[in-house]
Amino acid sequence: MDASTAEEEVNSMAENTDTVPSFYIGEHLPAPGGAVTSDLLAKAARDNRKVEAIIVDAQQKGLVRVYIPGLEAEDVNIHPDENINSGKVIGVTSSWIQLDSTDPVISSASRQVFHHEIGYAGFCGLMSLLVQGPRDLQQNLAAYYQAIVQGLAINAYLQINIVLPAYGPSLESDTEIDSQAAEPIMLYDELSSWDIWNGIRTAARYSSRISLALQIEYSIPNTHIQDRWFAEPVRYLILDSQAYVLNAKGFLVLTKHHQNLIQKLSRKLPLYLLANTRHAEFTPEPENPLDVDFPPLSALAPRGARQAPTTSRRRDDPQSYRKYLHHLLANLPPPPPLDIFGAGYQDFLQSPLQPLADNLESMTYEVFEKDPVKYDQYEKAIKLALEDLKNKGVENICVAVVGAGRGPLVTRCIRAATNASLDIQLFAIEKNPNAYVHLMKMNRDVWDGQVTLVKTDMRKWKPPSHMHILVSELLGSFADNELSPECLDGVQHVLDPEVGISIPQSYTAHYTPIMAPKLHGDLLSRAPSTPDVYEVPYVVMLTAIDFLSLDLEGNVNIEQAWEFTHPADELEHDGGFNDHNQRESFYLFPIPRRGVIHGIAGYFECVLYKNESSIVELSTRPDTIDAKSKDMISWFAIYFPLKVPMPVPDRSETQVSFWRNTDGRKVWYDWMVETFAFIPDPKTFPALTSASPSFDSIPLNKRVLIAASEIHSSRKNGCLM
Amino acid sequence: MDASTAEEEVNSMAENTDTVPSFYIGEHLPAPGGAVTSDLLAKAARDNRKVEAIIVDAQQKGLVRVYIPGLEAEDVNIHPDENINSGKVIGVTSSWIQLDSTDPVISSASRQVFHHEIGYAGFCGLMSLLVQGPRDLQQNLAAYYQAIVQGLAINAYLQINIVLPAYGPSLESDTEIDSQAAEPIMLYDELSSWDIWNGIRTAARYSSRISLALQIEYSIPNTHIQDRWFAEPVRYLILDSQAYVLNAKGFLVLTKHHQNLIQKLSRKLPLYLLANTRHAEFTPEPENPLDVDFPPLSALAPRGARQAPTTSRRRDDPQSYRKYLHHLLANLPPPPPLDIFGAGYQDFLQSPLQPLADNLESMTYEVFEKDPVKYDQYEKAIKLALEDLKNKGVENICVAVVGAGRGPLVTRCIRAATNASLDIQLFAIEKNPNAYVHLMKMNRDVWDGQVTLVKTDMRKWKPPSHMHILVSELLGSFADNELSPECLDGVQHVLDPEVGISIPQSYTAHYTPIMAPKLHGDLLSRAPSTPDVYEVPYVVMLTAIDFLSLDLEGNVNIEQAWEFTHPADELEHDGGFNDHNQRESFYLFPIPRRGVIHGIAGYFECVLYKNESSIVELSTRPDTIDAKSKDMISWFAIYFPLKVPMPVPDRSETQVSFWRNTDGRKVWYDWMVETFAFIPDPKTFPALTSASPSFDSIPLNKRVLIAASEIHSSRKNGCLM
Repeated sequence: MDASTAEEEVNSMAENTDTVPSFYIGEHLPAPGGAVTSDLLAKAARDNRKVEAIIVDAQQKGLVRVYIPGLEAEDVNIHPDENINSGKVIGVTSSWIQLDSTDPVISSASRQVFHHEIGYAGFCGLMSLLVQGPRDLQQNLAAYYQAIVQGLAINAYLQINIVLPAYGPSLESDTEIDSQAAEPIMLYDELSSWDIWNGIRTAARYSSRISLALQIEYSIPNTHIQDRWFAEPVRYLILDSQAYVLNAKGFLVLTKHHQNLIQKLSRKLPLYLLANTRHAEFTPEPENPLDVDFPPLSALAPRGARQAPTTSRRRDDPQSYRKYLHHLLANLPPPPPLDIFGAGYQDFLQSPLQPLADNLESMTYEVFEKDPVKYDQYEKAIKLALEDLKNKGVENICVAVVGAGRGPLVTRCIRAATNASLDIQLFAIEKNPNAYVHLMKMNRDVWDGQVTLVKTDMRKWKPPSHMHILVSELLGSFADNELSPECLDGVQHVLDPEVGISIPQSYTAHYTPIMAPKLHGDLLSRAPSTPDVYEVPYVVMLTAIDFLSLDLEGNVNIEQAWEFTHPADELEHDGGFNDHNQRESFYLFPIPRRGVIHGIAGYFECVLYKNESSIVELSTRPDTIDAKSKDMISWFAIYFPLKVPMPVPDRSETQVSFWRNTDGRKVWYDWMVETFAFIPDPKTFPALTSASPSFDSIPLNKRVLIAASEIHSSRKNGCLM
Repeated sequence: MDASTAEEEVNSMAENTDTVPSFYIGEHLPAPGGAVTSDLLAKAARDNRKVEAIIVDAQQKGLVRVYIPGLEAEDVNIHPDENINSGKVIGVTSSWIQLDSTDPVISSASRQVFHHEIGYAGFCGLMSLLVQGPRDLQQNLAAYYQAIVQGLAINAYLQINIVLPAYGPSLESDTEIDSQAAEPIMLYDELSSWDIWNGIRTAARYSSRISLALQIEYSIPNTHIQDRWFAEPVRYLILDSQAYVLNAKGFLVLTKHHQNLIQKLSRKLPLYLLANTRHAEFTPEPENPLDVDFPPLSALAPRGARQAPTTSRRRDDPQSYRKYLHHLLANLPPPPPLDIFGAGYQDFLQSPLQPLADNLESMTYEVFEKDPVKYDQYEKAIKLALEDLKNKGVENICVAVVGAGRGPLVTRCIRAATNASLDIQLFAIEKNPNAYVHLMKMNRDVWDGQVTLVKTDMRKWKPPSHMHILVSELLGSFADNELSPECLDGVQHVLDPEVGISIPQSYTAHYTPIMAPKLHGDLLSRAPSTPDVYEVPYVVMLTAIDFLSLDLEGNVNIEQAWEFTHPADELEHDGGFNDHNQRESFYLFPIPRRGVIHGIAGYFECVLYKNESSIVELSTRPDTIDAKSKDMISWFAIYFPLKVPMPVPDRSETQVSFWRNTDGRKVWYDWMVETFAFIPDPKTFPALTSASPSFDSIPLNKRVLIAASEIHSSRKNGCLM
């Protein structure tokens, strides 16, 4: 058996590892640094014969299982050495292994050899192993899963990377004809490859030691499938030599589509690019349904072009692929600003702030004040509001910044008043005694003492007169989750009842169901020590996610949950239990493609100020942020997890239900998810496998609930008012 | 609001509570022990008007939520007293409450009143509350679920019983016409009512404080739906007066179908039968889709018969219903023997024995020896084997009972030899020193000293000569789970290599996926303190379960996992790691009706001895036990739990995968479950809601994986060899 063929780490492209992704480029050669020799080829053939002989012998004896003895010195071509311990070598398990074979002798032999190889790889100090995905896409997958899961238990450090095609086998070439049925049963589609991955990682309980090595061929998947892979732990891209075309000058290049795919996945760190330069002459592959010839998806490079690189050229110059990748990666465009700002925060789960209960630290304020967009929007809104008050004939305008922090909004108020040519009376209210010290310094050194500072909880403030504008920045990632409504209710009594303006005037929470396997894996590993780990929302820079609800144009469906407006009309009707700030929202999201719901992403939008002609807004919704507050970086999204991932089929509907609860002392959220599918009504569809004439005219007329989550509740960890 | 109407506990029918179910019969009257008075009616109307006024006022003001003040003295008709604390009174929440209303004002008012009533019921010491199920079957169910779950949190002792119709609304009367679609969308079917229950208990995390009050009307559900309810925590049957017919003599009676349903559910303890004698004149019900007029299912009582009991008779004689129920229950047939033997063990999860590692206690042997069937079968098998050996001309026949325990098989060997007119040399091998003392006593007092006793582990026994028959009783609930194969391998060397016989000769393990909400709820409550609670199989008398895989005739599909035969041919091929006792099994179970898989039920079959003309077998399979070993009680089933319940849709397929693993020191099982559904291929089905002509001719030609479990493994808790 060919225990392991090694990859050579060639180079890291990154100069500045803080902001630019690191790439590692390697090639698949028969031995580390070695060339192909006739000795090696002969040995590989001999090894295969050795196991083959055991199998044939067992089959002749009529046994259904075989015993494969452990490895011997002649069976392996790697040995423990420093290079291997450094993580520079990547192991590859024997290519003939077929863990999912339906022949019990072959699957039994495969499993034993596979586990021998994992054991030896771990002994040698290998850190990372490439393992071929299942050979068949539907038969005996469970046997494959179980062999992988048992393999993980053999060595506690080894990373197992499952080699799978990025693009599922074509629908055309892999149909299984059911002679009984009027229509053939389609077994594979564009998500078939992802299905297998999803099965493996579910069986392996989202272990972080299982990841993906995606095979990139000439045909590459469409945007939706690329988005799906982006949500998954892709650590290797295996660029097959067949993926390259010759350009006009005769150089090996990748198409624009391939380049875009590599750029997209380059946001995932670390990413290894492997140029697979094996040739059919050297390592004959067993018949493999994954090796089908995909139809070309791109018009840029016509199908004929793939024939351009001659076999001899490829064999003689494996460096061509590596050189091209170096060139490509050196010329990738820089990452977007949010990637640079958020470097290291991708998919990192944080607990939301509780500013009402806690005092913030200066660094937290510092981060907030860095935003290039938010305070400009506030300044615009304040200026508009001041002008409107002036036009109404209001005199001696009083403005209060409630929750002034270190004073950025105070500065903006002064600037807006100056630009509006108005003298205003300015108050800054802050309860944090430490921030208050800084405000006094600012008033002395920057604001010329023109600001009246008050150290108090805004809800207890008794001002000398009514305020005309209250400026606050109390929003959390889900709008009201840091209790902005309750804070502003508490200070509403200081506002002029006739013309008083709150900036923000209103805000809305928004949500959509997402696939987020990395976040789920993270919570799963915390769950044993943290009982309520699924019962709280998290602030997170959502990166490795996929939106599951899309409209017909392929745009994400994000739904508004509820709105709060200030000043609040309903304050007087309150039953003393904060009832008027209770909300609920139900929405039925269409799910075009199957997937797994791991949780709900939350965003907000906010109207800072609006009059008949203008509107100044903030948004964190990925589909509206560019229109409303482009490049704003102050807020990450919020994530409401599901305890149990919910599989959703193609063309289903998922109802997400949200509640904002309050008992007058605390505020918390409840959330649940239900999924409905449309299926044929059995009354009109008497037998699934029957060849009756009605088989091809089955109305999909029944809508059934196929999964419902628990009601999750952050009650125990709710925000104190 | 009508805070609570009470039920009177009338009688317990049971004389002997150990073996006969207890029934409680009650009637729904407006007040405990009270008659309907015009005062009560006036008050109910007044209460409704009070909340109604608040709602109308809110609607006029354009509010979307209302504040309902707490209860006042006039609002309630129960008060804390001794009767209530005794658990004899059952509360009923106000009938107008509509937690799932799509009108936010009504749902808000409903939730508040509902929670007020739960709080007051708890304060008064009520133990059990009847709560009407959702009014609508699909809209706003999440709001209903959340109100129930929040209600559970209000009082920690109250049992909430959801009132639901046993039979889902008819398909005919409750279709929602989608004008866009060529075919109407069918919203309800026979499992609709169960769907709601499943949603509630899932949202409530299988709380044991939520149970069911099933409404029984004139039309009753078919056998499959009755089986489904049998798996659920039904605590009340509400027999509507409409369910009764007049018999030839003019008495109110229930049809045979109703009687059978009551008898079936009578295996669940405790069961309350409530005769609902409310009349439309007294308590007008709001329009309720659950109150539809079901078509009669039974030919026994023609539809016209329901009109027979006159309104005046019912009103004047509510005792008629109660008297009939007394009569019915007093004449129920006695429960089957297994129910009597297993009383108290229904659905009680036990860890399997590890007889190789542990020594059993006398009581455990005592229970095993009670079986009326098992030892008779052994005696038959031994006699057949002795006769066959005699016919082959074998002389000086040596028989060993390995693992003799307290000696029941020794007794049967002596009896079989006597009946076969043979002198045999008999050995009894036992490692348990305490049981050995008992064997010595038996040999002295009962067996006339004719048995050679050996105190040793059977695997270390060195007999004076080869044995011709080895008799053992080492089977567990899943055949090999108490390591019978490993034990018998270890003693195989004493067996005559030519003619040696093992009794049993072979055995097989069998499995099928089941719904078992009670078992899941039990494990869920243990999970926080027991990390591996889902990673071990349990021995259990399966009672509150439903088989999910049925064939076209409605019979359960149980599949054979694997077989062991003795003596084992493969022993010589073993690699020293017990590899020849490794097994795996994969089977695709058809699932005709939707449900939830909570785990896998396991059984065994065993051939004690077989020759050309006769076979002596044991079976615990519910579908073969009567044919092979009727009334055998020695083994309960085995249950392999799933960590996460898996919803399965109508007409799906579930693959169950099983592995019996061994590393030469331990034996353990791995198991996983995957579910596939058949859906239309999107390529031939471009838009779900479109009114395109192709809508009614959608081929169901795609088979997709819709859910996969983790691989569960008992490795950590495996049996030591």
